Amino acid sequence: MKREDANLAFMLQYEHVAWYEAGSVRILDRRIYPTKIEFVTCNTHQEVAQAIADMVTQSAGPYTAASMGMALAADECKKLKQVDQISYLKEAAYRLSHARPTTVNRMEMIVGGCMKAAEKAMKAGKAVDEAIFLHTIDSMNRRYAKIGEVAKYLVDMFPDNGKIMTQCFGETIVGMMLREAKERQKNIKLFCPETRPYLQGARLTSSVAYDMGFDVTVITDNMPAFTMQTKGIDLFTSAADSITMDGHVVNKVGTMQIAIAAKYFGIPYFVTGIPDEGYKTIEDVTIEERNPAEVLECRGIKNTLDGVKGYYPAFDITPPALVSGVVTDRGIYSPYDLKRYYETETGNYW
Amino acid sequence: MKREDANLAFMLQYEHVAWYEAGSVRILDRRIYPTKIEFVTCNTHQEVAQAIADMVTQSAGPYTAASMGMALAADECKKLKQVDQISYLKEAAYRLSHARPTTVNRMEMIVGGCMKAAEKAMKAGKAVDEAIFLHTIDSMNRRYAKIGEVAKYLVDMFPDNGKIMTQCFGETIVGMMLREAKERQKNIKLFCPETRPYLQGARLTSSVAYDMGFDVTVITDNMPAFTMQTKGIDLFTSAADSITMDGHVVNKVGTMQIAIAAKYFGIPYFVTGIPDEGYKTIEDVTIEERNPAEVLECRGIKNTLDGVKGYYPAFDITPPALVSGVVTDRGIYSPYDLKRYYETETGNYW
Repeated sequence: MKREDANLAFMLQYEHVAWYEAGSVRILDRRIYPTKIEFVTCNTHQEVAQAIADMVTQSAGPYTAASMGMALAADECKKLKQVDQISYLKEAAYRLSHARPTTVNRMEMIVGGCMKAAEKAMKAGKAVDEAIFLHTIDSMNRRYAKIGEVAKYLVDMFPDNGKIMTQCFGETIVGMMLREAKERQKNIKLFCPETRPYLQGARLTSSVAYDMGFDVTVITDNMPAFTMQTKGIDLFTSAADSITMDGHVVNKVGTMQIAIAAKYFGIPYFVTGIPDEGYKTIEDVTIEERNPAEVLECRGIKNTLDGVKGYYPAFDITPPALVSGVVTDRGIYSPYDLKRYYETETGNYW
Repeated sequence: MKREDANLAFMLQYEHVAWYEAGSVRILDRRIYPTKIEFVTCNTHQEVAQAIADMVTQSAGPYTAASMGMALAADECKKLKQVDQISYLKEAAYRLSHARPTTVNRMEMIVGGCMKAAEKAMKAGKAVDEAIFLHTIDSMNRRYAKIGEVAKYLVDMFPDNGKIMTQCFGETIVGMMLREAKERQKNIKLFCPETRPYLQGARLTSSVAYDMGFDVTVITDNMPAFTMQTKGIDLFTSAADSITMDGHVVNKVGTMQIAIAAKYFGIPYFVTGIPDEGYKTIEDVTIEERNPAEVLECRGIKNTLDGVKGYYPAFDITPPALVSGVVTDRGIYSPYDLKRYYETETGNYW
């Protein structure tokens, strides 16, 4: 992918999310960005799956990484018979899509798309790895276009000079939202909770916003409610790792308690994303628990005595009663009426 | 102070909070405890005031430090005429009590007590620094006794096998509460939000609880609401930097949003402490804003790009509607009826 839109600083991060080239996948190590800019090079698709599990990249990063990992898997098995290549790719697809439990549903769509591209290439006698790579770029571009539509509906909700609170790092939607706000000269200010333990809000969201010329303030995760009160926050928004068909939002842990505080203060909460047809109810979702050791340290320094326990749920669940609207590429829906999204038009977001 | 109660592990921290000896005040550096055990030595009362401002110690630590700082000031001016000693001590009292804005009220009581002890010693021809030192020890012992009473009423509220969420580090009340729970064989489990940026919950509360043999789990500050839901938290409790007579709780930032979440989930919130007669309404309180740079880093590593702003309110304000009860040494009061505390008996907590 060329840096076609050079004025979009967020692309600087974006194009390096994950990249397949010369028998490896290179992934920007977002665990340390922007303190350091380093890449993790994966030489096998298994290493890509491990990098996803280790959160070398997150938000939409794993979707791109998994897709690039499929290209790498195609390279790994290119000397096998076609039928064995298919088996090999199916195994890779399973491993990559199951690297983390909460988003398996979307990941299966991603690797499923790669499988189709692979089969088509085999029939046409073309290089399979290149076909998957090009399919990945094409998917990303289509996703950008869709998310551009989401951003328009979201920015409609921003008052002029609005103070917007975010949660975690929504990657593409954050960049698209800021570009849209800039084009429409909505002079917004951003307030980003830091999002421990991984610090996505402090490290990633605020970097993108600052690079794009916005006034951005980072707070710790115990400050959203008081900041709403003292700074006059107008709107809370987040992306979602999943929006179930019964209107629950699965997103980075902390989203729910900010949504509860927003409700308390009468501030609307808009979640961006497309309802997950594969998750009919919240019962279908598995909330990932990660290594508690990550909670017990900050930037590699342990905070607690040995023997003190930790608890690290990666996501939480915001119920529909706390959601003011689900902002999609087709408009804003009530969390209680998400089937309407699929009635208006067909088409797969991913 | 001797370590008379050796089975109280929290005393290990406590007796080193601040100590006057040989022309200096030694303060345990709680900014790095328990990662490192180091002391800051203050050779002037001005350095003590600066150490308080820099949060070398916090919770009730500044009260002890200010009082020991008065003993140091008495040593500094001991060769002056008595009338000049009084002036010198008054200036020291002002500086020490105003090191941080939010608790000036209590600090003035503390240094006021030291002034009385000083004047009494002068009349009796005794060493003033020693008199203030002994007064400090005596005050601490009286405070312990009072807080022991508070702990009894608080632990009454704990169900057997209860899961208790705390916020920040309540120092004496945390230790007393745990001792009381242990004596009554209430098998409680503690859940401590880490309390960024200073990490009191992770570093201090969990250390005391672990040292005293309790099952204690640390979470990041974005996890209290989800932890309430998934772990079945029974009760939320915190100490307070101030409880105003109109029922508002001023405590470490984050308290309010945990209280909002507790209300949402139907979990009671009990605050411990004595209503501040000096603060008739919340309008009387100044919320301290600290250096935003502290919010933008973790353990000395900067998380954000240069140019990203930070916001660091040290405290927030929990309104009476979110408070289930104010737990005092005389029982549990409604936050809407705190004047009753002063009707039942006279006597100054500090």
